[in-house]
Amino acid sequence: MHVKIKSSELYKQIYDLVLAKIDRKEWKEHEKLPSVRRMAEELNVNRLTVLRAYQLLKEHKKIYAKEKSGYFVQPEDPSFSLNESQLPEITDYPYSNLLSSIHQVVVDYQFSQALIDPNLLPNSYLSEYVKKVFTLYPKVLGTYSTVQGDEELRTALSDYFYKTHHFFAPIDELLITSGAQQAIDLVAKVLLRANDTVLVERPTYSSAIDIFRQYGARIIGIEIGQGGYDLNQLEHILKKDKPRFFYTNPTFNNPTGCTISALQRKQLVELAEKYQCVIVEDDPFRDIYFDKAPPFPIYSYDTDGYVIYIRSFSKYVSPGLRVAAVACRHPLMSHLITSKSLADNGTALINQKMFLHYFFSERMQIHLEKLRTALFLRKEVMRNELAATSWKWTDPSGGLNLWVELPEQISVEKLLDACLEQSISFVPGSICDPDQALRSWIRLSFSYANEIQLQTGMKKLMTVAETINSDSTYHQSG
Amino acid sequence: MHVKIKSSELYKQIYDLVLAKIDRKEWKEHEKLPSVRRMAEELNVNRLTVLRAYQLLKEHKKIYAKEKSGYFVQPEDPSFSLNESQLPEITDYPYSNLLSSIHQVVVDYQFSQALIDPNLLPNSYLSEYVKKVFTLYPKVLGTYSTVQGDEELRTALSDYFYKTHHFFAPIDELLITSGAQQAIDLVAKVLLRANDTVLVERPTYSSAIDIFRQYGARIIGIEIGQGGYDLNQLEHILKKDKPRFFYTNPTFNNPTGCTISALQRKQLVELAEKYQCVIVEDDPFRDIYFDKAPPFPIYSYDTDGYVIYIRSFSKYVSPGLRVAAVACRHPLMSHLITSKSLADNGTALINQKMFLHYFFSERMQIHLEKLRTALFLRKEVMRNELAATSWKWTDPSGGLNLWVELPEQISVEKLLDACLEQSISFVPGSICDPDQALRSWIRLSFSYANEIQLQTGMKKLMTVAETINSDSTYHQSG
Repeated sequence: MHVKIKSSELYKQIYDLVLAKIDRKEWKEHEKLPSVRRMAEELNVNRLTVLRAYQLLKEHKKIYAKEKSGYFVQPEDPSFSLNESQLPEITDYPYSNLLSSIHQVVVDYQFSQALIDPNLLPNSYLSEYVKKVFTLYPKVLGTYSTVQGDEELRTALSDYFYKTHHFFAPIDELLITSGAQQAIDLVAKVLLRANDTVLVERPTYSSAIDIFRQYGARIIGIEIGQGGYDLNQLEHILKKDKPRFFYTNPTFNNPTGCTISALQRKQLVELAEKYQCVIVEDDPFRDIYFDKAPPFPIYSYDTDGYVIYIRSFSKYVSPGLRVAAVACRHPLMSHLITSKSLADNGTALINQKMFLHYFFSERMQIHLEKLRTALFLRKEVMRNELAATSWKWTDPSGGLNLWVELPEQISVEKLLDACLEQSISFVPGSICDPDQALRSWIRLSFSYANEIQLQTGMKKLMTVAETINSDSTYHQSG
Repeated sequence: MHVKIKSSELYKQIYDLVLAKIDRKEWKEHEKLPSVRRMAEELNVNRLTVLRAYQLLKEHKKIYAKEKSGYFVQPEDPSFSLNESQLPEITDYPYSNLLSSIHQVVVDYQFSQALIDPNLLPNSYLSEYVKKVFTLYPKVLGTYSTVQGDEELRTALSDYFYKTHHFFAPIDELLITSGAQQAIDLVAKVLLRANDTVLVERPTYSSAIDIFRQYGARIIGIEIGQGGYDLNQLEHILKKDKPRFFYTNPTFNNPTGCTISALQRKQLVELAEKYQCVIVEDDPFRDIYFDKAPPFPIYSYDTDGYVIYIRSFSKYVSPGLRVAAVACRHPLMSHLITSKSLADNGTALINQKMFLHYFFSERMQIHLEKLRTALFLRKEVMRNELAATSWKWTDPSGGLNLWVELPEQISVEKLLDACLEQSISFVPGSICDPDQALRSWIRLSFSYANEIQLQTGMKKLMTVAETINSDSTYHQSG
């Protein structure tokens, strides 16, 4: 029988062939490989098959490519790296997402993600429950949502906000987005032009800083602490810098855990009206409180349409669904809807329906209670471990993070490098600061790791910190 | 028994109370209502309850609001409208999405949406099938996807592109987005700065024009016709205007249905390299051909990384899942990933897993064959109706649209207004043109309406056109 080699396997043979030649030093470091065309002719195969083999070799760092000149054997020295930047040049590219870069490192002790451990979610119940969505809406996979979001979901949320958040947003003042991240991006896109001023809390959610930078904003930090803001200083800046908006996270602030009082919420709205500065209120942690419920949203104090309310549900209900809601008045809402239509034409309907049926189920409320207890216990574990150090922190009454100040002599940068090597991750405070200062602070999230991981990981982290500390002491005295 | 009124019902009583006073002319047109505070005190209810009632009355156009002065009785004259624009002013707001505005009108004869009729999709099979995703990935609703997209899906797509699209994209050169719309937006965000030049086909996908305008681009149209492009003219523009990229839809172009030949695809890549202009290839209709498969993507001719390939699957597989793929090389891909992370932190994992299992099922391939036939038949129905007119069009060999030129004396603007009144929608050609000319053209989509609706709706449309035509003839001769 004649065995025909499947073309999809051919490239693997070429891959092996090249690798063998490199291993046997038949082809030496930096030596040029035969061109794709020649190789294809020699082996009597399609050029694409050779290209596929070469690209896989490149991916595996066995060969490297030089623009316009072909493929070369990669030297074994791992420090060798070619500037393989091809055109188009993106010379003025101002973007980064530092938080996302840290999250991309896979570690055993995950203290950098302010995310719920999937093991804390009622996964099998959730899975079983959402299946009914397909029965209820048989054509849901074939149907686009409206850009503004599913009306049934907006109606339910309107009612929910009225009953629990103390404000009334009719359905035409609600927009469904793919997570709070998208909401922040849409707001920035609508309101910001290059060189506009934006206020953020200091410290704040680091990806928000990156988003505002992307639109060319000038960012000013407003200190947030246990006593809230210094409203005199804020008023001074509002008067002087005429910011476009103030991005706030006033309830269990990320990363500090601080909550702005009801009184300051009221005063903030008055200042916003007086100086015509929009307040963008990001409120993902509202339901994650350990003792008593936080004050009602800033949005509930707004009567003149100066506040945009962003409500994420990803943090504790269903990270995998990517559903958030935005409340604000027209005409701002109309602009957000247009921007949403250009950004992705609307959040997938299936996600909205799944969220609707899950979030408003009785089980969800029971789950929430349990979740609060579980998160409180995790926080306690981390806090107890911290108690063994001379580090400073304030015990938060909600949220997912501890905001910790290290002794000055510990370099947070060195600590992060050393921790990542030990498979521990955390967020350096400097990336939460628009001024990139706060160099002695770190954010530790206690929501993703389980109690054993928290205990073991924190002990490891502290050992690493001691090593670095004694190193630096040694260098200082040496 | 003492019946306690639920607070959520209270606002309805206040709503009725106000309405009664207005109806009885106790409160007259433009008369000021009691302030929220006073009304709350009088009725001894919460201010929010009154606010809710007032806002609902406003929504229902019974009262209107004036900034800083309160609520007033709305006059019955429907032409009365208050400029209710509150602060913040968005004076320089340059966005619009004309296509999306047309789609928001609900009509009986839907010829404006280039979307598959959900009735053509195997909905019950699809629903049953995707349920297994919850069993396969029990924690899928609690888990974030990586920003770049699920690795299992990217691996499957890499293989699929290699086998069917004739190019090899390793998984690190693939990005999953929430539909092609998001991909276009991310590419524009990464590559465009204000006043950069962008080329688009003329005519083209109108939302793409709106997206590029949003980033301040200068847009130049490149004529597309049965013979493809005029490459001499294109080269002249590439040389003179140094565009950042050329956004193309070379396979069953939206709206014309034209397909660029393999030869021109090759030449286009050579021009792109020569003038360092990125080609953005939007390819949503590839599988919707009526006769023979179209040429391989432009991307398959690219060796130097000048092409970005956007592959939507929404058009015929699962509009409701919002899953598309982008293929391109690094470093461009790294920038797109950062931009995606800032835009929404990654497409929901559940959508990616559902798409993966559905798209690569055997049933899908059978379905595709059926779908081609069904769409061909719908196209034929529309074409047959058109044959009764003196209008001009070219029979497309794939895609979802007919691109039709009307006699000059018919005003497309008037036709659209009159059609919407008769519950018929279509896309006016001018919005597909960066120069907003092409005023005698319309795009008719045959994919969403069924055969009966196509037949009836087209007859109605032609009657409307005749009325307008004779009106204008009358005016011309009168």
